[in-house]
Amino acid sequence: MANICLILEFDGTAYAGWQVQANGISVQQVVESTLAQLIGVPVRLISSGRTDAGVHARGMVVNFHTDRSLPPSAYREGLNRLLPRDIAVREARQVADDFHARFAARGKWYRYTLCLTPVRSPLHGRYSWQLRAPLDISAMSAAARHLVGVHDFAAFRTAGCDARTTTREIFSLDILPAEPLLQIDVRGSGFLRNMVRVMVGTLVEVGLGKRTPENISLLLRGEGQRAGRTAPPQGLCLMEVWY
Amino acid sequence: MANICLILEFDGTAYAGWQVQANGISVQQVVESTLAQLIGVPVRLISSGRTDAGVHARGMVVNFHTDRSLPPSAYREGLNRLLPRDIAVREARQVADDFHARFAARGKWYRYTLCLTPVRSPLHGRYSWQLRAPLDISAMSAAARHLVGVHDFAAFRTAGCDARTTTREIFSLDILPAEPLLQIDVRGSGFLRNMVRVMVGTLVEVGLGKRTPENISLLLRGEGQRAGRTAPPQGLCLMEVWY
Repeated sequence: MANICLILEFDGTAYAGWQVQANGISVQQVVESTLAQLIGVPVRLISSGRTDAGVHARGMVVNFHTDRSLPPSAYREGLNRLLPRDIAVREARQVADDFHARFAARGKWYRYTLCLTPVRSPLHGRYSWQLRAPLDISAMSAAARHLVGVHDFAAFRTAGCDARTTTREIFSLDILPAEPLLQIDVRGSGFLRNMVRVMVGTLVEVGLGKRTPENISLLLRGEGQRAGRTAPPQGLCLMEVWY
Repeated sequence: MANICLILEFDGTAYAGWQVQANGISVQQVVESTLAQLIGVPVRLISSGRTDAGVHARGMVVNFHTDRSLPPSAYREGLNRLLPRDIAVREARQVADDFHARFAARGKWYRYTLCLTPVRSPLHGRYSWQLRAPLDISAMSAAARHLVGVHDFAAFRTAGCDARTTTREIFSLDILPAEPLLQIDVRGSGFLRNMVRVMVGTLVEVGLGKRTPENISLLLRGEGQRAGRTAPPQGLCLMEVWY
């Protein structure tokens, strides 16, 4: 048996998220069926995590066990020939038998992109959250500093989160202007359901002056406040997973 | 009568180009019919130029004459409410009666985007030309310098070009790495049919070592050589038109 690891890039616009589910086509389903077509037997992928409907990925990591003895590059070439245009395999390699894309993950990098043009932008709309109001970026950066470190992020998740613990470590949170875009790069040990999108929604409220940077500390201490709205999915991209 | 000027942004993926034509929906057709819906009478747009099928625009300039006395912002707001997601009005203003979007144009800025990842990129594919081979960027920059200035660009157009003269001025041609993208910014007085895409196709052949930078001079002197292939449309974006 070989354990094969794939790094996937996808445009999530057309999909109901990563995981196989009833209400639409998932990325997992498309990759699994394409893989089955390539090697002739059904395959179950283990992924580094889920992504929600409409979320993109530049570096989703998955692995699967197979008794076929194809060289890893044959998976890359073969899948890229068969997969639809909005999904591609960036890398394929053989890994140790006990490598597990989910349990072995040590951290993840997510990027959330805001687009700050006065009217909606057809050229940026597919990969960003369009906000017309100007944002106070220094207030957002001050708020971001509160989020870095080991905290209980219970306030920063949405309904349906089934994590048993809510303490996570954020390694860094950088707000990078890239006219007319604003990129929010979040690196951390792990993330609760919708955690990045709730963090971004809350940071945007700080940027709009609806919430103070210090308010973030109250949220982290569980002091009764509600976090901001969940930022829409199309601005989010899973950039990289570390092992 | 008011003369109204609009600056349009659009994602050209779904369209058969700017101009109204038989073989598909054009951007012009969608904007004209939306405008007619807004003001209740048919309108004919004068544009700064055409764009081909699949080409994008961040700053397409158009104007039209109307006897309606709406404030310009009402055109922007009204059209943005009615237009499909892949077309938007960035600005609307009233201009002098004799302003003509095509004849008054003094220059244009086009950006062509290459994507240099080893496998096709779902996240960049919509707005770039995917090239897997590495490119010699310093050779491309040397070649680009030959194109700047006043030249006869007869070799850099495609069949169907109906321009009476083929001399144009290129103000600047900059090649800007933006990992994993390479942006080619071309500013000039005017452009022949497919001129930017033929220039890019030719520069890419220089980058691949299939053509020397000096070969560009021969092409500009009309010395029997053929220019490179026409680069595909989805990498091209009309950024700005100057008046």
